[in-house]
Amino acid sequence: MTRAFAPGSVAFVGAGPGAADLITLRGAERLRNADVVLFDALADPALRALAPNARWIDVGKRVVRLKGGDPSVFGRLEEELAALAAAGIECEVVPGVTAALAAAASTRRPLTRRGDGRSVALTTAVTRDGKLGAGRHADTEVFYMAGKQLAALARKLVEAGWPATTPALVVSRAGWPDELASEHSVASLAEATLLHSGRPTVVTIGVGAEPIAAGARRARLVAESVAAEEARAAP
Amino acid sequence: MTRAFAPGSVAFVGAGPGAADLITLRGAERLRNADVVLFDALADPALRALAPNARWIDVGKRVVRLKGGDPSVFGRLEEELAALAAAGIECEVVPGVTAALAAAASTRRPLTRRGDGRSVALTTAVTRDGKLGAGRHADTEVFYMAGKQLAALARKLVEAGWPATTPALVVSRAGWPDELASEHSVASLAEATLLHSGRPTVVTIGVGAEPIAAGARRARLVAESVAAEEARAAP
Repeated sequence: MTRAFAPGSVAFVGAGPGAADLITLRGAERLRNADVVLFDALADPALRALAPNARWIDVGKRVVRLKGGDPSVFGRLEEELAALAAAGIECEVVPGVTAALAAAASTRRPLTRRGDGRSVALTTAVTRDGKLGAGRHADTEVFYMAGKQLAALARKLVEAGWPATTPALVVSRAGWPDELASEHSVASLAEATLLHSGRPTVVTIGVGAEPIAAGARRARLVAESVAAEEARAAP
Repeated sequence: MTRAFAPGSVAFVGAGPGAADLITLRGAERLRNADVVLFDALADPALRALAPNARWIDVGKRVVRLKGGDPSVFGRLEEELAALAAAGIECEVVPGVTAALAAAASTRRPLTRRGDGRSVALTTAVTRDGKLGAGRHADTEVFYMAGKQLAALARKLVEAGWPATTPALVVSRAGWPDELASEHSVASLAEATLLHSGRPTVVTIGVGAEPIAAGARRARLVAESVAAEEARAAP
């Protein structure tokens, strides 16, 4: 089922969003067989129990192998892959659960919804030069690491065309035992600043921020979908 | 670390994209303690070894609990959550690795890139009434369930403003041992139809479809980023 972990090779492993048990079985197996684990500040100390025989080296922000979340989403993976390719060192990438998915799971708010939730965009709100940018790209938009600038994010969202009453969900430390989640609208997003201060945060805007079975509108949409499908399936 | 799995409750578990070892440790633990597992056609038979004591019930497409990928992304989770809430049955959602992340990992093409890859959108190309829709929502766009309509998707992408030369990556059965991946441009996307025929397929368009270290442009961008960061970090 699993490709062997070749000696002399490097595995990039997504540790998942936080709690050590949200790593995949494949990721855990790679840790078990590792001689050296390079990790960053995001990794749960409980992960160490999965690689008891390895040397664990904290490499800080600049070079990491065991990455929080998923290596392919806001993990700056491309720079490390390029360096390994240049050095002729073999590698693989083991995917993980990214924070947007963990926040959706723990708050029971699916990112996609039938009918009016056909797309979800994952975006970093802060550009390379430190500026804040926010658009309206999809039915549901999840902003990573936006915790410090919620008031500015709210302004940018309104400028980008999101109605001020659009549902907004703020989740910090998604997937950890001390996760916090709070509900707002785009207009009142700044209220969340104090609660989530100093914690890694994802902000979900749009359809995917709505609670399930909240009102007649969604129930009607679901009923219509089911009826349409039954009509199509009928002989 | 893990909340207890209460008797009489339901856990929605994301099985990950395919291979059984891409489920999370938490998902595997829930299977180990389950009395009944409801699953759909997407689940890897090898997962059964993780729940040897449970009754496994194939519930087809309409009601599922063990879901392929991540339950919150194109999993139609909202309908099942609403039904359980109406019936007063407790539940939890365990996230998983969604196909877009698995495809990025196995092809070593990160979905986000510093500088020009700030956002990634996950979209279903087919609407509720069976029509094909495609826009230009983010720097990288991943289309789910587009395998049968690649020629039409290419036309819609050009209409939406994607240059015909934009890189396109097609991956079918992402995360499985028999995964197939092929490289195209938006203009030549239809070429992929035969190779991936009859297989669950994701199509990645834009920056995230580019190979790493492909050309001078990306190397220059990365070098600029590093120089800018070092300049900022200097005392």
